[in-house]
Amino acid sequence: MEKIVEQGLLYDFYGSLLTDRQRSIYEKVVYDNLSLGEISEAEGISRQAVHDLVRRSTDTMREYEEKLGMIERFRKLRTDVDRLIECTKEDADDGQLRADICAIAQEIRQDVG
Amino acid sequence: MEKIVEQGLLYDFYGSLLTDRQRSIYEKVVYDNLSLGEISEAEGISRQAVHDLVRRSTDTMREYEEKLGMIERFRKLRTDVDRLIECTKEDADDGQLRADICAIAQEIRQDVG
Repeated sequence: MEKIVEQGLLYDFYGSLLTDRQRSIYEKVVYDNLSLGEISEAEGISRQAVHDLVRRSTDTMREYEEKLGMIERFRKLRTDVDRLIECTKEDADDGQLRADICAIAQEIRQDVG
Repeated sequence: MEKIVEQGLLYDFYGSLLTDRQRSIYEKVVYDNLSLGEISEAEGISRQAVHDLVRRSTDTMREYEEKLGMIERFRKLRTDVDRLIECTKEDADDGQLRADICAIAQEIRQDVG
């Protein structure tokens, strides 16, 4: 996965577990796309400190994903829901449509516990 | 929510974030349904220590749920998937069925990001 995509996903799921300080800097890097130099100047800390803070935040959130696996669970759910939506567009008769949708929905039901 | 149900749910979602020690004792209380006295004796710690450990574990996991809200997200998903499954059993014509299912599926799609 491209790093910036991974960082965005991690933050969507686990950003609430970071400290306010980590969140603030992380957002500037990942969402506002500011350079380390710009943030370093605005925050009055070294570029290295900004870099380390982002790296540590990413590591922390990766550890949460390793333990909780929510990104992975939601990725699977998205795939299955997309299959379901595709299914309603297919040229199947009524009975077949119900059966197909029911099968996928049951699968999703398993995944949501 | 009944406490034992809440404790089970919290553990399903966030148990992986507890320490090995917390997990071991928590499971004995919540799943194996052992008494504080039995665990106290087996572990060689006071009943109060067992009680505190379980309470702290529960508090920790509640804090994660407050921040991450996964139990709530999955509860909503289950409700919607159940509506979907019900939908396939209803006596609607083919076009209506597709439309209804598509609407619910799109809603679920939003919720899974």
